Amino acid sequence: MIHNVVKANAYFDSVTLMLFSSRLNEIEGIQQAAVMMGTDHNKELMKNSGILNLETASKASSNDLIIGIKAISQEVIDLALKALNDQFENKSKATPGSEKKTFKSFESALKQTPDLNFAVISIPGRYAKNEVMKCLRNNINVLLFSDNVSIDDENELKTFAVKNQLLMMGPDCGTAIINGVSLGFSNVVKHGNIGLVAASGTGLQEVTVIIDRLGGGISQALGTGGRDLKEAIGGKMMLMALEALNSDDKTEVIGMISKPPSKIVLERIIKLVKTFKKPVVACFLGAESSDFDGSGVYTSETLESAANALFALSTGQDPELINHETKKPNLQLPKENSGKYVRGLYTGGTLAYEAILVLKHQQIVSYSNISSDPVYLLKDVEKSHEHTIIDMGEDYFTDGMPHPMIDPRLRSERILKEVADPETAIILLDCVLGYGSHLDPAGALVLAINKALSQATHPLTFIASVCGTPSDPQNRIEQESKLRSAGVIVMDTNAQAAKLASYLIARRLD
Amino acid sequence: MIHNVVKANAYFDSVTLMLFSSRLNEIEGIQQAAVMMGTDHNKELMKNSGILNLETASKASSNDLIIGIKAISQEVIDLALKALNDQFENKSKATPGSEKKTFKSFESALKQTPDLNFAVISIPGRYAKNEVMKCLRNNINVLLFSDNVSIDDENELKTFAVKNQLLMMGPDCGTAIINGVSLGFSNVVKHGNIGLVAASGTGLQEVTVIIDRLGGGISQALGTGGRDLKEAIGGKMMLMALEALNSDDKTEVIGMISKPPSKIVLERIIKLVKTFKKPVVACFLGAESSDFDGSGVYTSETLESAANALFALSTGQDPELINHETKKPNLQLPKENSGKYVRGLYTGGTLAYEAILVLKHQQIVSYSNISSDPVYLLKDVEKSHEHTIIDMGEDYFTDGMPHPMIDPRLRSERILKEVADPETAIILLDCVLGYGSHLDPAGALVLAINKALSQATHPLTFIASVCGTPSDPQNRIEQESKLRSAGVIVMDTNAQAAKLASYLIARRLD
Repeated sequence: MIHNVVKANAYFDSVTLMLFSSRLNEIEGIQQAAVMMGTDHNKELMKNSGILNLETASKASSNDLIIGIKAISQEVIDLALKALNDQFENKSKATPGSEKKTFKSFESALKQTPDLNFAVISIPGRYAKNEVMKCLRNNINVLLFSDNVSIDDENELKTFAVKNQLLMMGPDCGTAIINGVSLGFSNVVKHGNIGLVAASGTGLQEVTVIIDRLGGGISQALGTGGRDLKEAIGGKMMLMALEALNSDDKTEVIGMISKPPSKIVLERIIKLVKTFKKPVVACFLGAESSDFDGSGVYTSETLESAANALFALSTGQDPELINHETKKPNLQLPKENSGKYVRGLYTGGTLAYEAILVLKHQQIVSYSNISSDPVYLLKDVEKSHEHTIIDMGEDYFTDGMPHPMIDPRLRSERILKEVADPETAIILLDCVLGYGSHLDPAGALVLAINKALSQATHPLTFIASVCGTPSDPQNRIEQESKLRSAGVIVMDTNAQAAKLASYLIARRLD
Repeated sequence: MIHNVVKANAYFDSVTLMLFSSRLNEIEGIQQAAVMMGTDHNKELMKNSGILNLETASKASSNDLIIGIKAISQEVIDLALKALNDQFENKSKATPGSEKKTFKSFESALKQTPDLNFAVISIPGRYAKNEVMKCLRNNINVLLFSDNVSIDDENELKTFAVKNQLLMMGPDCGTAIINGVSLGFSNVVKHGNIGLVAASGTGLQEVTVIIDRLGGGISQALGTGGRDLKEAIGGKMMLMALEALNSDDKTEVIGMISKPPSKIVLERIIKLVKTFKKPVVACFLGAESSDFDGSGVYTSETLESAANALFALSTGQDPELINHETKKPNLQLPKENSGKYVRGLYTGGTLAYEAILVLKHQQIVSYSNISSDPVYLLKDVEKSHEHTIIDMGEDYFTDGMPHPMIDPRLRSERILKEVADPETAIILLDCVLGYGSHLDPAGALVLAINKALSQATHPLTFIASVCGTPSDPQNRIEQESKLRSAGVIVMDTNAQAAKLASYLIARRLD
């Protein structure tokens, strides 16, 4: 029995909708249920799950909310709709017991907290510019979480911010640690003397987490938004953040994390950091280390080696002494494994990108939805081709759905699909912890892995790493232990996980 | 050119002698050199190294110091002897810059530090009893590091200690943490609410280290000496330590670590802890969990699961929810591996014992020098037989030599031997960090592994775990990274390392 409801012009954010959906699915007698905004992608998903009829689908637009329920009886459907209505109503009330101060307007917030100097803005991108500008005009630094801000608006906002010596981190800046306060998607790490600036969210998370594991600590971790190092923006926020870290008393060592910047931006960065007395480590994933010749900047090929170098410098050691070469462990894939390919399913974009580079380093070329080489861009993102590394946090997957770091459903489905493919030998995974992330990502992965393996017709090897610390709400050690209980080989870092996968594939090809 | 010198009745402790030896070997032109006490075992070692002639050997007794030098010329030998003499002289002077107070007698120490309530005693065992008794009579708790104390003396000292409500930890107690102060072989771990008492040194280290990794902390870690739970001693110090932990305000959860006690001692322990309100976890390696039925005590099969349970209880979680079952990772040994057997070379006795139990759990029987079953005791400790796990800290190996946690030489030689054996498939290793241990045990292992592999005629798989924390002087993460650089598969705990070895062997047999 299928029931559809369309609520015109009803907007809820994707995380709220995910909670609604999962509560519906817990009701006895419900076979499948989802509450989603009516984007084409979501309609497709609901249709495939058999909870949406064509007539309803044609009526709903991306501004409408669709409820789709498949249940054993009309009574169950009525019960579910009633429960859902209660939740809709509760959601619009203020959270009871919350200690946050809420204000009716920006002006009244400013009046009642005159020492305000930092704002996190997370409203739909098309409304963001005005609010950011209000903050900047009032000498308030901004972390702009929203995406869908035009590059012209970004440039205008950053130009104004730089002129007034303010941070404007973003748009689409998901991770930062300011004076020990973790913002957005970030991990509970020790305080210390290492300052970071990054145009990448999970890249920043991975580096802070590895530094924490080594025993080091973070002074500041600043995000710039992913487009900052493009020519159109010119690295405005990267340059400003570098200067801020150079003047910051708590920061003794500086790290930069990003995909390679445009040439002209790189020149500006090198010119600036050459004037610094503090040591600087660059992790521009995929860049040539020769780009930095003569600059005095330490370079690193992976997030892990960047973290190692930063930790070494922060404790007065020579980072050049760190051994980057790793001998292959003497193991192989079981001979009865019929598969040939690595399939990487990532929630962290930079982690996916790092995996592509590590595989490439072992002469293993992989296809991807984020490949920098158009030849290796996947034609159909839904279908893996030979070695494939997918960033499931890309727009295609997050259109109308929460990010996979929050909502594990799409990745769980993709795991089923990859396991069913007889060509798959290794499934490579990340598992990102910290504030903002799912409260049990390893648990969700284990459910999916066990389900997939129960249907599998050939043996598969799972390799994963957990990006998090023991102090994170999800506790790294417990998450690792869960993954191991399902037979997953858990490595300490994403670079190590990708390396092990590449070694096993290379040995298979021998 | 070989030169021998015998110094009659000259005693230096084994760690000092190891330093002397290694400095001699650094002199250019020295081919091989050693400075050792003249025990039969050491004479054998020096003879085998070609630095001792029979005439000298027959003259020296175990009270004499033997210097053996093989060098390219008489000049080098003269130079080496001069350097050695300088070191002998320096050693007898007080360390300059040392802030330790030294006293000429026990009485003057007591007079000048009237609040003294704890003593660490580390003199040859046959002189220990009187000194311990002096301390106890003056209300001073004792950690007795020395071995070679008779069981009657131990009983007498402990009876007196218990009567006067004092701790007498030992003899042969190597590890303790008292009010956050690490004593003997111990690791830098976080302070917390978990109190431990152990009849085992590396068992205690491994549990404290895993708790630290999980994010938990230690209030007290008390050692009892290895014989405390035998009937002759009757668990006197274990019972006393348990009561102390039960009264200790900082301790909220209590853990016991030991090999299985005698039946009568176990009954006493259960009777006591039944009266406690604080939860108690028992890790009596090899005991049946049914021994504790109805006692309310949580039991655990490995040091790792004990640490997991203690951490869960210390944070208000249910330890029963922790998943102890681990699915096999889908990997196998390379098919060109001709070997069949696991060879475990351990510096930590309890870690070796844990490995034997983990293998047994997978129906893999191993021979050992510490097997509790006489059938599986190695006939010749120098020669491995089928699956073999060796505790290289046992008397046989430490007679006149420093413990392998300090001096890696004997284990390095044994690695060469096992690698040369075509029947060896996997070499399983521990790497114990912390105060007292070698300053770079992973570095020493990597040297030995690389040397062995350069001579190997068949492929081998190395699996290891590091018992230590990132805060230890050796830094766990850096040690792990060194091991990995040599192709060693590094697991998080000894139990996991042994489990991986057992899975790989079991799959080979399939």
